[in-house]
Amino acid sequence: MEAPDIPTKHKALIYDNPGSISAKVEYVDTPRPGVGEVLVKLTHSGLCHSDMAIMTNRWTARIEPTPKGQIGGHEGVGEIVAFGPGAVVDQSLKLGSRVGIKWMAYACCNCIICLSGLDSFFYPGTFQQYAIAPAHYVTPIPDGVPSDMAAPLLCAGLTVYSALRKAGAEPGDPVLIMGSGGGLGHLALQIGANGMGYRMMGVDMGDKETISRECGAEDFFDLSKYSGDGSEKELADDVKAATGGRGAAAVIVCTGHNAAYAQALSLLRIGGTVVCVGIPEGGEVAMPNATPSQFIYLNAKVVGSSVGNRLEAIQLMELAARGKVKTHFQIKKMEDAAEVFELMDKNRLQGRVVFDLQA
Amino acid sequence: MEAPDIPTKHKALIYDNPGSISAKVEYVDTPRPGVGEVLVKLTHSGLCHSDMAIMTNRWTARIEPTPKGQIGGHEGVGEIVAFGPGAVVDQSLKLGSRVGIKWMAYACCNCIICLSGLDSFFYPGTFQQYAIAPAHYVTPIPDGVPSDMAAPLLCAGLTVYSALRKAGAEPGDPVLIMGSGGGLGHLALQIGANGMGYRMMGVDMGDKETISRECGAEDFFDLSKYSGDGSEKELADDVKAATGGRGAAAVIVCTGHNAAYAQALSLLRIGGTVVCVGIPEGGEVAMPNATPSQFIYLNAKVVGSSVGNRLEAIQLMELAARGKVKTHFQIKKMEDAAEVFELMDKNRLQGRVVFDLQA
Amino acid sequence: MEAPDIPTKHKALIYDNPGSISAKVEYVDTPRPGVGEVLVKLTHSGLCHSDMAIMTNRWTARIEPTPKGQIGGHEGVGEIVAFGPGAVVDQSLKLGSRVGIKWMAYACCNCIICLSGLDSFFYPGTFQQYAIAPAHYVTPIPDGVPSDMAAPLLCAGLTVYSALRKAGAEPGDPVLIMGSGGGLGHLALQIGANGMGYRMMGVDMGDKETISRECGAEDFFDLSKYSGDGSEKELADDVKAATGGRGAAAVIVCTGHNAAYAQALSLLRIGGTVVCVGIPEGGEVAMPNATPSQFIYLNAKVVGSSVGNRLEAIQLMELAARGKVKTHFQIKKMEDAAEVFELMDKNRLQGRVVFDLQA
Amino acid sequence: MEAPDIPTKHKALIYDNPGSISAKVEYVDTPRPGVGEVLVKLTHSGLCHSDMAIMTNRWTARIEPTPKGQIGGHEGVGEIVAFGPGAVVDQSLKLGSRVGIKWMAYACCNCIICLSGLDSFFYPGTFQQYAIAPAHYVTPIPDGVPSDMAAPLLCAGLTVYSALRKAGAEPGDPVLIMGSGGGLGHLALQIGANGMGYRMMGVDMGDKETISRECGAEDFFDLSKYSGDGSEKELADDVKAATGGRGAAAVIVCTGHNAAYAQALSLLRIGGTVVCVGIPEGGEVAMPNATPSQFIYLNAKVVGSSVGNRLEAIQLMELAARGKVKTHFQIKKMEDAAEVFELMDKNRLQGRVVFDLQA
Repeated sequence: MEAPDIPTKHKALIYDNPGSISAKVEYVDTPRPGVGEVLVKLTHSGLCHSDMAIMTNRWTARIEPTPKGQIGGHEGVGEIVAFGPGAVVDQSLKLGSRVGIKWMAYACCNCIICLSGLDSFFYPGTFQQYAIAPAHYVTPIPDGVPSDMAAPLLCAGLTVYSALRKAGAEPGDPVLIMGSGGGLGHLALQIGANGMGYRMMGVDMGDKETISRECGAEDFFDLSKYSGDGSEKELADDVKAATGGRGAAAVIVCTGHNAAYAQALSLLRIGGTVVCVGIPEGGEVAMPNATPSQFIYLNAKVVGSSVGNRLEAIQLMELAARGKVKTHFQIKKMEDAAEVFELMDKNRLQGRVVFDLQA
Repeated sequence: MEAPDIPTKHKALIYDNPGSISAKVEYVDTPRPGVGEVLVKLTHSGLCHSDMAIMTNRWTARIEPTPKGQIGGHEGVGEIVAFGPGAVVDQSLKLGSRVGIKWMAYACCNCIICLSGLDSFFYPGTFQQYAIAPAHYVTPIPDGVPSDMAAPLLCAGLTVYSALRKAGAEPGDPVLIMGSGGGLGHLALQIGANGMGYRMMGVDMGDKETISRECGAEDFFDLSKYSGDGSEKELADDVKAATGGRGAAAVIVCTGHNAAYAQALSLLRIGGTVVCVGIPEGGEVAMPNATPSQFIYLNAKVVGSSVGNRLEAIQLMELAARGKVKTHFQIKKMEDAAEVFELMDKNRLQGRVVFDLQA
Repeated sequence: MEAPDIPTKHKALIYDNPGSISAKVEYVDTPRPGVGEVLVKLTHSGLCHSDMAIMTNRWTARIEPTPKGQIGGHEGVGEIVAFGPGAVVDQSLKLGSRVGIKWMAYACCNCIICLSGLDSFFYPGTFQQYAIAPAHYVTPIPDGVPSDMAAPLLCAGLTVYSALRKAGAEPGDPVLIMGSGGGLGHLALQIGANGMGYRMMGVDMGDKETISRECGAEDFFDLSKYSGDGSEKELADDVKAATGGRGAAAVIVCTGHNAAYAQALSLLRIGGTVVCVGIPEGGEVAMPNATPSQFIYLNAKVVGSSVGNRLEAIQLMELAARGKVKTHFQIKKMEDAAEVFELMDKNRLQGRVVFDLQA
Repeated sequence: MEAPDIPTKHKALIYDNPGSISAKVEYVDTPRPGVGEVLVKLTHSGLCHSDMAIMTNRWTARIEPTPKGQIGGHEGVGEIVAFGPGAVVDQSLKLGSRVGIKWMAYACCNCIICLSGLDSFFYPGTFQQYAIAPAHYVTPIPDGVPSDMAAPLLCAGLTVYSALRKAGAEPGDPVLIMGSGGGLGHLALQIGANGMGYRMMGVDMGDKETISRECGAEDFFDLSKYSGDGSEKELADDVKAATGGRGAAAVIVCTGHNAAYAQALSLLRIGGTVVCVGIPEGGEVAMPNATPSQFIYLNAKVVGSSVGNRLEAIQLMELAARGKVKTHFQIKKMEDAAEVFELMDKNRLQGRVVFDLQA
């Protein structure tokens, strides 16, 4: 395959006023790949709620505010159009290979932490037409997985897949997704049901019951029905009733609501695990029942999970290629970003948004 | 072996005024073993800080207060003197076999929880000369482990062994014991160092450094040196400095101090685990940094552990038989109980106390 | 519920001439349950190829020949009709509870082996109308699983479920079933695909392709197409081609053919696992490529699996209750046994046979 | 630190007549590091029995014969003296950093196999004064581990450490080393006893009892005592007697004798694991009792292990830095190679040989 023409400038979506909801399209210089890097011509990038949090600086537990001019996005897919020196890491990457760039676009892959499968952070931008990535850290996209569907899997999908793995449940165990109808939750249900053999259960507002059941929830609990004073108890009672009096083997919290975290431990069976995925925005509080004796009497476990590692990304792409997980999404252009962010802020987005970056 | 003479009455140590520090020796009826049970002539029982908490109702998170007349104790060792019908579960238990009765003296062993190795609760009394126990739930004591040394291993030792296993560390990983010189901590250090191959580290007041190092701590952090305003940070800094800048792979909290729990998460490396063992007495609080984003950014884990299961009890006895773990203890009589509890309440007990029940 | 009438005699199917294919129905005394035992009025028992092997003494690696008068069968389902002393182990077992009796009808559940989940052997008879079983070792049958379908799951299903667990594959990994259309294989495909999230692949003769694909095989390899001299190589080539050039993560050998075992290691990817399930009848040989360097260069693993433990039995019943696994079977009477065994011997049985024991 | 002077030629030990025992020292061109590579000035390289096997083409299961002119050696230690472009992978590698080059000097680290911790093969030469290695694949040598001691740990030590991990034993489990006094075995004993908490047992000829016990064997079985016809049975009897009648939880075969492999399975307890490490030279045979029913009745496992991965190399170096494992070795010069290989061939080498490459 011949090397394609690469423009000197390309379109990018930029946070021009971090702290508020504001983004605009600008032309920026197209970089050349350095040692060990590839240049990817991006065709699609998913839009994630965490992009909103980063644009608006709402994750108060993070120290550094987002710099002005930051290019957003962190789940992009496209084709390799150039290799930097020493970047042909193996035979499988060629000019034209479709690859994904993930939230963690880079990890050293040599330290004791990386080698244990816990890759570390780095923040890139995939809301643009060309982006640089380390050759050893892109994820090949298999035939049979369209690029627009692949993009959200690289962040939302990978995040919940890794979370499900950390839950350590056994085949057929009841696994409860809090926020089951959302961008993370609807993928967690499919992956858990079709890819890991769990008995999936969903918790969300009633209008999310249909999507939850379509995605594999065998039980659904409508949050709006637990609105009284003793509401938490009632949800726990219903979850226990549905699980032979025991509770869920794992609870994956896919929303960022403090209230969900406050309930999660009470929904577990003895020896169960809560996995924290959704990051609260604004004021975050400690889980009120995260007391030592609560952990001890229940042999309970709480674990956090952020994104996933390279092996998990490969495994997830294979699941998608076999049709076991599908993203619900709509296509937008970068130029629609302002409008889309406003809808997201009002919780009025239907499904996930994927930008067609070359449109 | 002939069946021994069994008296109709025997001595027992009774909580005559639960809620305060008060216990007295009385004669009680010697029971006969029922179906599947054995009668054990107890020779030794360890005295645990949890006995104090139960006598005084200081574990406020537990619902039912201790009933008047309760016989205390939960780590006893003695000989089988009678079998109930159907109690000869296998060839290894005979008249005269030395066995231990543990905190969890009974579990159904048939439900999904028990079969996962998470046995459930039941509360017995081992501060007496004869006690009933289910044949399938006593722990055989191997030759080479004296009964007085075995008793504390059945609760304190088993508890920390199970906690170390739940930590999921790798060979040579740095594992930090908070309260390293105490009844639980000094056993955790030995088991971790000699029986599991970890690099053990201790945290306690300076006068516990000697015992901590003797028990296998390769590093020791004197809590009294971190007394300023920024004290928590300083301990975390020192732990990180001792571990290549990363932090501990696991922190086992063997004390019941809320302050220890407040610090524990900050001492972890990415992907590390806090194991809750010590149960706070009086006002218990949630871990202040147990926020979702703290778990997520660190891929951290918190897990509770109470006592251990039957397989772990057998494994621990084998470690003891090979000389890998020894208890520091002094022998007392049941009649000394009031005095001993007073010393314990003032934190002035040196080492663990074991009652010689036949004295 | 009132205790039902229990007859003093009941029908049983007896091996009257072990070593040859011969079985007849006789009336035998109905026993009374001893300490810790229950009496089960059996309604169904599956017929397994291992029943044939035991009746005919064809498993030459077993030492003791089958005694004359042995009652056959080892996967029975029925209702509890009486409890022996001390047999009410927990609230869930009542008069009338439906329970299953498994191949391993008893295990001590106290030794280091049992406590590690590797229960030991004991051989009972379920081809009869009433049978004794230890209360702690029967498996409750959940509502929604008919007794005739449950019976084969207690041996064939449990065996392959445990084998799949021992394979240690990751979600979505390619898992190959040798003998995919047989009594064991068709259950392995369903459990792996619907209950554990693997990418299942089948190997069998071409007439088993339909059932294999219905049971979840995404790929099927027709053994009759690999008939030349280089046949083994060709199957390995096709398996590798279907798995990105790597080979299967696990191969579960559900047949007892030495030829299957001879091929199994060659079908693995690096680090893969062969699980031995089918027991060869007649002359058994060592796997010819089980050489040290074969294991070392491939980081390969071979592991054996016989039946499963109690936790696995409970998990499998829950899978069946959720409709994830179904047995293909036909109902017969004990009186049909001779005819059925003859058909089995000629490999002309369609699907599995379940005896209606009360017919 | 300034870059050191690098000569254009350096000394190397070359196999000038592969197939026979013959090696000579020659001057070769010093290469320049390419993209992502470092140049290491080697000071020490261990001499391993596998060097002999490669020089003499005695591993008949390997396809390609060793080419004439091959530089031997695969466990080298030295200092980084130059970086190729893009090779500064993280802050920890600097000019002058001591690093090790392992048997597997390179792995892609991106495929599903590598990401599962099963790195793939590549063969380098460390019997020379300067060698190239990929920056991401060298192992940093911590302070406190002398280079001469580190060298044999990078192959022999890493190999047995990985093998012990693959055995999957529990704390305190009996683990038997076949060939316990040899180059691999004496390291396996120390790592298992001091670094992983196992109860180590050794099997070897009687003159290896002293070193075996010094290295941590709690039991030793003298092979010369089992010389009769029924010899295999007798060793199994003694191993069972020493383990409560059960057998070893794991057997690590560190020798390349077919006879050792023929015995290994018989020494296991139910559910135990044989790990193949030693590669037979000359005629290799399948394990004669590796029959399906042997695996099935015992729930036994056989697994192969070759060298180890990068995480294991880091963990092992930390164990060595803490003084938990020491190599028995003698220092030689490259010029002594012919003589040393002759002694090795006659089994007359005392301890391991390490070449001082700058002598």
